[in-house]
Amino acid sequence: MSITLNSPLDMHLHLRDNEMLKTVAPLSAKSFSGAIIMPNLVPPVTTKEGLISYKNRIIDAIGDNNFIPYMTLFFKSTYTKEFLKSIRDELTAIKLYPAGITTNSEGGVSGFDIEELRETLTAMSELGIPLSIHGETNGFVMDREAEFVSIYEKLALNFPELKIIMEHITTKESVEALDRFENLYATITLHHLMITLDDVAGGMLEPHLFCKPIAKRPEDREALREVALKAHPKVSFGSDSAPHPQHAKEASHCSAGVFTAPIALQVLTELFLEHSSLENLQAFVSDNAQKIYSNLKVPTKIITLEEKPFLVPNKYGDVVPMYAGKELKYSIVV
Amino acid sequence: MSITLNSPLDMHLHLRDNEMLKTVAPLSAKSFSGAIIMPNLVPPVTTKEGLISYKNRIIDAIGDNNFIPYMTLFFKSTYTKEFLKSIRDELTAIKLYPAGITTNSEGGVSGFDIEELRETLTAMSELGIPLSIHGETNGFVMDREAEFVSIYEKLALNFPELKIIMEHITTKESVEALDRFENLYATITLHHLMITLDDVAGGMLEPHLFCKPIAKRPEDREALREVALKAHPKVSFGSDSAPHPQHAKEASHCSAGVFTAPIALQVLTELFLEHSSLENLQAFVSDNAQKIYSNLKVPTKIITLEEKPFLVPNKYGDVVPMYAGKELKYSIVV
Repeated sequence: MSITLNSPLDMHLHLRDNEMLKTVAPLSAKSFSGAIIMPNLVPPVTTKEGLISYKNRIIDAIGDNNFIPYMTLFFKSTYTKEFLKSIRDELTAIKLYPAGITTNSEGGVSGFDIEELRETLTAMSELGIPLSIHGETNGFVMDREAEFVSIYEKLALNFPELKIIMEHITTKESVEALDRFENLYATITLHHLMITLDDVAGGMLEPHLFCKPIAKRPEDREALREVALKAHPKVSFGSDSAPHPQHAKEASHCSAGVFTAPIALQVLTELFLEHSSLENLQAFVSDNAQKIYSNLKVPTKIITLEEKPFLVPNKYGDVVPMYAGKELKYSIVV
Repeated sequence: MSITLNSPLDMHLHLRDNEMLKTVAPLSAKSFSGAIIMPNLVPPVTTKEGLISYKNRIIDAIGDNNFIPYMTLFFKSTYTKEFLKSIRDELTAIKLYPAGITTNSEGGVSGFDIEELRETLTAMSELGIPLSIHGETNGFVMDREAEFVSIYEKLALNFPELKIIMEHITTKESVEALDRFENLYATITLHHLMITLDDVAGGMLEPHLFCKPIAKRPEDREALREVALKAHPKVSFGSDSAPHPQHAKEASHCSAGVFTAPIALQVLTELFLEHSSLENLQAFVSDNAQKIYSNLKVPTKIITLEEKPFLVPNKYGDVVPMYAGKELKYSIVV
């Protein structure tokens, strides 16, 4: 049996820059037709020139792969409608980070004063630019996302025409919020479908599974699996694949991020098959996203997977992937 | 102002063996009059010969320091009363590990069938040997200790004459259990008084703060602080100082254990002073333990601390301590 996926999309991806970009971009381009590219470089992407220049560096890194980087800006409440109009054609979404909440997010939003955000969010609503959010408060690590749900709700109520994407959701509270507000959507990562905090810190401590938001409880993973496996129409796949060099992970202070780009489709295929949900995988990894982001240009790319062992490399360049050294059941065949 | 502690005791200590023992034993002996030595070597300490031989290696490692290692056996339900009588004079407690729950605990107890444990626990009750327990189930990492409370209660009810020490408690549930059963006691570590899961995994991931049981929620730390700072008579200090070489901590799979022996009294002094509880520190670090373990022989040792910066070394041998490179407010003066 072979499994065919049409134009898979990764709706949340970190490609970094420079050498790291050159290592990881071709790996995403091998599996996916396109990806939403996160803007948290140092400094973050906040200008038209910065965005176009980053896009060009990504295209260079991809080589002759057929892959579109969907570009984003790092949210600033100083963006005017005029500015957003001028960049609209280059822009797929704007990513909002609460200040200091994850890697390179120091310049993010502090507090969520609707009046402070109103001009920019109104302009985004009018221009049809989705708002992508890393939804965590500065509270206790296991509570941060659930606490943020009230902020999602406040934003959803105040800006009913704004499409709000709850990125990389990890809790049942976020899953439940999906159906309460028409304009709330979500991405779900591979790793949050596969692991809980037990996998990160229940046996030995596993730095390569440490990410933000941190993996939560078994009942949270169940809630995520439920909407992913049925391809809930407001949910799409976003890997949040986030490479760090090995020395930054196996260290006294370990950076947050799980690198999954080269294994994502293989593992998702196995998961969906195991749960008799293969018929929903196409929607989860591409069709839903195309409906949510209504005007994406998506290159045609057919990905074929077969039940054939795939030994995950110990490293890609200097990056240790999830499931390094393990044998996966499905392979992408060319 | 100088602060004087009489014969501090560490009621839960890992000294390991061989080179590591030689590195860490003198550091404990510098601060403490004695310590309860955990038996989870490879293989664990389960025989009289093994126990005496380990004790002698510890005494060699301590050199001319005035320090008594209080020895323990690794619990086996096959220990007979006759065997325990034969080793009684050498033995301060028996440590029970659920199978596989932490470093070198593979040979521990599976299930807690009272009938299977009855002969050994009855003999311990009759001989006045305390039972020291690492109380965690195999459940979700944040729930393991709270889930184990029902096992503590079952043991406490079935063996009312047995002194049961809930080791290194980390939750409010364990604190609450203390007052429900006359024969339940507890040790509390330095690190569980100082950190929560936020410190381990809320910012970057901090392998040197990863331990078992894992640090819990802020309200759990509050409950621990409350009983420690008032020196609840059933609670004593046990560092659970657990050295691992740096390469085993800053690694793809990181071992559990925080190394605190050389900084414990300095940090406790600051904590108790900050909370206007200095008058209870002596009871927490020595007097309570001497009452709970009623027949300890305790060498006289006066430890004097002064408000004088102590720069924590980046390493002791190959072991990175808690607060490495930080300046503490209090120093031990000779």
